[in-house]
Amino acid sequence: MRENPRLKPPGGTGYLAWLRHYRRAWLSGDLTAGVVVSVMIIPQSMAYAMLAGLPVEVGLYASILPLIGYALFGSSMSLSVGPVAVTGLMTATLLAPLALAGTEHYLQLAIWLALLSGVMLFVLGLLKLGFLANFLSHPVISGFISGAAILIILSQLPHLLGLANMPSTPGEMLSRWEPVNSLVLGIGLAAILWLLYARTALSGHLQRAGLAPGAAILLARLAPILVVGIALAATAGWNLAEAGVPVVGALPAGLPAFSWVTPGVSDLRSLLLPAVLISLVSFVESVSLAQSLARRKRQSIDADRELLGLGAANLGASLSGGFAVCGGFSRSVVNIEAGANTPLAGVIAAAIIAGILLSIAPLFGHLPLVVLAVIILVAVTPLIDLNSLRRAWRYDRAEGITLLSTAIGVLVLGIEGGIVLGVCLSIVSQLWRGSRPHVAIVGRVPGTQYFRSTKRHLVEIEPHVLALRVDENIFFANSKAIEQAILQAFNEYPDTREMLLILSAVNHIDGTGLDMLSEITEGLAERDVQVHLAEVKGPLMDQLADTDWLTEQISEVFPSTHIAFNTLGNLKRAPQAEVA
Amino acid sequence: MRENPRLKPPGGTGYLAWLRHYRRAWLSGDLTAGVVVSVMIIPQSMAYAMLAGLPVEVGLYASILPLIGYALFGSSMSLSVGPVAVTGLMTATLLAPLALAGTEHYLQLAIWLALLSGVMLFVLGLLKLGFLANFLSHPVISGFISGAAILIILSQLPHLLGLANMPSTPGEMLSRWEPVNSLVLGIGLAAILWLLYARTALSGHLQRAGLAPGAAILLARLAPILVVGIALAATAGWNLAEAGVPVVGALPAGLPAFSWVTPGVSDLRSLLLPAVLISLVSFVESVSLAQSLARRKRQSIDADRELLGLGAANLGASLSGGFAVCGGFSRSVVNIEAGANTPLAGVIAAAIIAGILLSIAPLFGHLPLVVLAVIILVAVTPLIDLNSLRRAWRYDRAEGITLLSTAIGVLVLGIEGGIVLGVCLSIVSQLWRGSRPHVAIVGRVPGTQYFRSTKRHLVEIEPHVLALRVDENIFFANSKAIEQAILQAFNEYPDTREMLLILSAVNHIDGTGLDMLSEITEGLAERDVQVHLAEVKGPLMDQLADTDWLTEQISEVFPSTHIAFNTLGNLKRAPQAEVA
Repeated sequence: MRENPRLKPPGGTGYLAWLRHYRRAWLSGDLTAGVVVSVMIIPQSMAYAMLAGLPVEVGLYASILPLIGYALFGSSMSLSVGPVAVTGLMTATLLAPLALAGTEHYLQLAIWLALLSGVMLFVLGLLKLGFLANFLSHPVISGFISGAAILIILSQLPHLLGLANMPSTPGEMLSRWEPVNSLVLGIGLAAILWLLYARTALSGHLQRAGLAPGAAILLARLAPILVVGIALAATAGWNLAEAGVPVVGALPAGLPAFSWVTPGVSDLRSLLLPAVLISLVSFVESVSLAQSLARRKRQSIDADRELLGLGAANLGASLSGGFAVCGGFSRSVVNIEAGANTPLAGVIAAAIIAGILLSIAPLFGHLPLVVLAVIILVAVTPLIDLNSLRRAWRYDRAEGITLLSTAIGVLVLGIEGGIVLGVCLSIVSQLWRGSRPHVAIVGRVPGTQYFRSTKRHLVEIEPHVLALRVDENIFFANSKAIEQAILQAFNEYPDTREMLLILSAVNHIDGTGLDMLSEITEGLAERDVQVHLAEVKGPLMDQLADTDWLTEQISEVFPSTHIAFNTLGNLKRAPQAEVA
Repeated sequence: MRENPRLKPPGGTGYLAWLRHYRRAWLSGDLTAGVVVSVMIIPQSMAYAMLAGLPVEVGLYASILPLIGYALFGSSMSLSVGPVAVTGLMTATLLAPLALAGTEHYLQLAIWLALLSGVMLFVLGLLKLGFLANFLSHPVISGFISGAAILIILSQLPHLLGLANMPSTPGEMLSRWEPVNSLVLGIGLAAILWLLYARTALSGHLQRAGLAPGAAILLARLAPILVVGIALAATAGWNLAEAGVPVVGALPAGLPAFSWVTPGVSDLRSLLLPAVLISLVSFVESVSLAQSLARRKRQSIDADRELLGLGAANLGASLSGGFAVCGGFSRSVVNIEAGANTPLAGVIAAAIIAGILLSIAPLFGHLPLVVLAVIILVAVTPLIDLNSLRRAWRYDRAEGITLLSTAIGVLVLGIEGGIVLGVCLSIVSQLWRGSRPHVAIVGRVPGTQYFRSTKRHLVEIEPHVLALRVDENIFFANSKAIEQAILQAFNEYPDTREMLLILSAVNHIDGTGLDMLSEITEGLAERDVQVHLAEVKGPLMDQLADTDWLTEQISEVFPSTHIAFNTLGNLKRAPQAEVA
């Protein structure tokens, strides 16, 4: 299959391969994407900084160096990194016990959290330990995201209702009930309606008005910037701030200074677990997003380079006074739809944000907080993923329970508690599944060489041959159950003289399992029953080769069940002399 | 195969079946065993009570009702329960943070520990939850026992050296060094030499002197009682107590009173974890011992009835002022060798111990403590099981590390820490093993219907058919690795048009794995590659039946690799039209 040259992966073969082999044909796409993404992420970044309990300009600071850092090391051609909702929430809740939001110390802790997490991600990438993230199963990730989305929505309700005092918990919100500011609520509801319209019907209307479909979709994606513009104009025109609508407030102009304050040992220690959690979640989210983007363009992703890219992005964030960043879903989708071919699109977006910080940034000080809250609300509501819950519940009850417990755990126990609970549940349910093995008595499908369960098929058996297929790795959690299944099968067929264990589905036998098999074989030998094996896989055979069980207790190892069945069927050993 | 009636399992079919169907022929064996075991366990029980930090008579109290309780509910015809070294050590170390050894409160806690553990075991038995013990793998049990044996030896050294102050830790022992009491040490070394001689050469010498082999072996097993007799005579004759040899001291005559003091809530709470640990270890030790004894006599063991039996034994211990009990290795072996046919042997032993408590028990007050210490030392030294370590290390390095870490954990972190560390390591190494799956590209062995790895065998393949055998359950910890293996195989064979996944070794696919397979199938479909399945097991097919992956994405499911290979080999699909 020949490939369209525009679709050929520009990266994937070494650092900055996209730059070294850059083609003129890619430039217009990267330029468009850079402009569109920068316009889109200005309100978003400010909103997520507010969610994180930080001054809104910190969101803009975290939208420059991280994009360049990722471009240097990352392997995705389309991923756009920056502040996202989940890392914003994690920054807020993980730092809450350590400092008061709004203080200088809190800001410094947020910067160090990005630093620590950047170092961890980069080191994991150097050590090629990206596989560690595999221990977060999909139900845990999905449950975590849904729980986090609910937490985020709860955290933004006071902004929407125009409450002056920010209650930190839902309980506090109810107990310290205040009159709703109806002006704020009105602005909020209008903004919500506009954003929902933009998300659903706007692009269709624009197309009917004559725009090309691609342009219509992109314009609809930029709807939030229109809300921001109208809100700014209204605040200035009607002096809403004096009418009691909370606004962002003074916003410094200019680029962030390169900042470096050495963290103390006690701060580092208290930030260690938060940094582990935020690194893990950022990595898992970014890499799965990068993979789904890469699939669209038939490119590939290197998980270890993603670690380096994300690590560099977070180091960049912390050096320029920003907070933790991660690959963002909506910004990456806009990036790819606007035509991004390489990370140059991100570099261009970074340059535009820097230009805005140098020019019109102070204008955003007039923005009502409720507009930022609405942007967050509309962005995170789709993250509550009931569909995954339904699917998991139907496919495997244990996974449905894991997903639900993780989500409830995040709400009730907090972010750390929810993740730890989910990981433990997914490990336990995996062990539990392995601890209930399926052991089938099999016979030959007449006229063939195939062997199937006597319970599910009409098959031929030999009365003195008992053929058992063990459908699970044999290890400590199931060796007792397998022992019982084997002995029970033996009781059902008491005339057995030859027992054949078919190991086609056994990939490992641990020491506990080996001891069990050895004891069973010994017990059967005392009853004059010989044990044979069939279909032992190569790697398992290598491991068993030196054991006493295989060399001294097992009669024969057959390459196939068919050969074993024929050989044993014709074997008529004389019964052993009676034992007193 | 007909069975010798004497070997027929008398029990195993209901509670007290052995009593309901009792035969005269069994009586002489039960009687002999009862007498021999009672003589053997008198010094042993006192020694283990001392190890537990309790008055020595508590060991005798724990040797009456427990044997009767076990006889009522247990399923083993040969197991002998009572105080054992490991539960003695666990009682001492688990109670050490809660009370001072030797105080009334400490004794009461030990009794309640047996009570709680009895209740737990009994309830677990009623709920048929015996399988929970399967989560202790053999390496963890072996490492735990070896670590505990070393702790026990360290705890007895001060008695052997005749130190007056009992240091509680090895460190304290070194720092508070005192002059060794050479008289005590001399008695101890003489006793050790005699016991070692009894264990190794005595039965041979007795046989050469004309005794029947069975009688010689039994007599040799009773050697400790001779040490006790000589030591009592020597203490009385030379007044060793006044010469500075510590002795047991005043020992009350008479049966234990039925005791009942209701424990307080705070005591119960602090005893909860210790009771869980002691129940778990007692059950695992007893049931594996019972199984190996049952195998000798071709009888069988019911794990849930063992829980009830052990639970009743511990309840009995606590009601009669005793401490936690468990099935003991040496006492059970002596029991079976002396001819025990049913638990009546235990009931007889209990009656003899009761008789001794009513008569000559106060005599034992003159027994030097060093003699009890030597009995412990000689009994537990063989529990340090370097052979298991060597075997585990050779068979599977991860299990060797688990065993060693558990043993070192018990020594360094204590009993709880060691067990928790071991359980975590065995679960993690199981996940780790599953996270590195083997995926083989297979082809047909020429002239047969068998398919083997292209890496290990000379096989035939079709250039446009890629047949992959996944040798592992597909779940969250390995789905990334399996994805990579499949894509790498595809890169090695870029002419592939039909991909065949052989699932003969896949027993489960979790939601994360299903998502991965679905994404891969989608990606391959975009490259005009169809995915087919072969050898899907019945239970897995049931689970997959309703999924979109199977119903919409998979082209065909073949019953065997052979049929799939023939069908796909003849299939020549026209290449898809070029995609721009």
